[in-house]
Amino acid sequence: MNLILLHPDDLDQQGYARISDPRRLAHLRDIHRAAPGDRLTVGVQGGGMGKGALIELTPEQAVFALEPLADTPPPALPVHLVLALPRPRMLARTLEHVTALGVKEITLLHTKRVEKSYWQSPELLPEKIHQHLVLGLEQARDTQLPSITLSKGFRPFLEEQLPALLHERRGLVAHPGMSMECPRGISENTLLLVGPEGGFIPWEVEKLLEAGCQGMHLGPRILRVETAVTALLSRLF
Amino acid sequence: MNLILLHPDDLDQQGYARISDPRRLAHLRDIHRAAPGDRLTVGVQGGGMGKGALIELTPEQAVFALEPLADTPPPALPVHLVLALPRPRMLARTLEHVTALGVKEITLLHTKRVEKSYWQSPELLPEKIHQHLVLGLEQARDTQLPSITLSKGFRPFLEEQLPALLHERRGLVAHPGMSMECPRGISENTLLLVGPEGGFIPWEVEKLLEAGCQGMHLGPRILRVETAVTALLSRLF
Repeated sequence: MNLILLHPDDLDQQGYARISDPRRLAHLRDIHRAAPGDRLTVGVQGGGMGKGALIELTPEQAVFALEPLADTPPPALPVHLVLALPRPRMLARTLEHVTALGVKEITLLHTKRVEKSYWQSPELLPEKIHQHLVLGLEQARDTQLPSITLSKGFRPFLEEQLPALLHERRGLVAHPGMSMECPRGISENTLLLVGPEGGFIPWEVEKLLEAGCQGMHLGPRILRVETAVTALLSRLF
Repeated sequence: MNLILLHPDDLDQQGYARISDPRRLAHLRDIHRAAPGDRLTVGVQGGGMGKGALIELTPEQAVFALEPLADTPPPALPVHLVLALPRPRMLARTLEHVTALGVKEITLLHTKRVEKSYWQSPELLPEKIHQHLVLGLEQARDTQLPSITLSKGFRPFLEEQLPALLHERRGLVAHPGMSMECPRGISENTLLLVGPEGGFIPWEVEKLLEAGCQGMHLGPRILRVETAVTALLSRLF
């Protein structure tokens, strides 16, 4: 937690912020070893960042006197990430990684090699997803939550969502065996599609290419989804 | 396990390989759902890769008839990674990531902000480290184990090891606030130094720069060590 991320409800009109949830209180106490008088980096969800002086820390609440929150969060990556739904533990870590890296738009997609049971995982409950996004923001000192879309059918995604997503975006499908190497240091708006463990099936790749995406590879090594996504984002942008 | 990694002891003179450890047997059964007759990708530690036909699978052992192991493993990254010792769970995952990415030389380093207790962790036992390296190789289809060096003092590292490590290698210290951006797509031999959570202390950075390393940053976002290392390796090489 390199940033104390405040919810707008945590603020009052007088320039104070109060937090009372056990997670942030425990973190302030055990990791920051914070004490009244400390100035910590704070930010408001969807808003600015700055410093807050801790003026009270009890087992029930922490109170900050806020200085002007005039700093803007770091820039977002120009990417919409379409990720075949990974298994639940991998999903949790991947959401944290990509949020920390600055991804703001994420679609979780069903493909042939995604196990159907993954869609029943409690990790997909909105409050669980929110938790991982918040951890990513707190890590990277960012205040802008990513938006998450669940696409539970490949064909409806292909027919109903993909054309709009490709409007003014360059579509890139990461898939082993494609002839193009992953481009480096691009700045254009991008739709990045990443398959599940085991990859997209050939029919899915074919349909994505037909829709106007370019295929690309990241080399001969087979990487876990969480490693691959971080490696792709870091090389692309 | 995209590769069944064989130990030279698993092989006999007649072109068969026998494995009997519970981990690989369970993986063959539960993940590969392998059955006699299947041809699987196999490789020998430190040697070649190819196909093996599973000719027997019992609760006690699996026997493969090996075809010629004529494929070479994917190329290594031209990097020696010096990593401030992360906390144990992060170490485990980071070793898997960097092994999968192709790092072959790793030094785990003590710095001021590394908690001393981390050096007592069972994750540092040679057999535990070996386990994570093997998982990384099996993931990426590689057979060349990385070598790991433990450097439990920063000053001895600086005085006794660093000069030799910088011989014919470009030293790069990843540290927030450095003026140079992380280079992209380099191919020269590199010594990459990555600090702990919280970073190197200024004195450590100063000494590394004095020794001939260049400082570089990865942008304004603060990343967890495992995310940062993957992002650095993917952008650099």
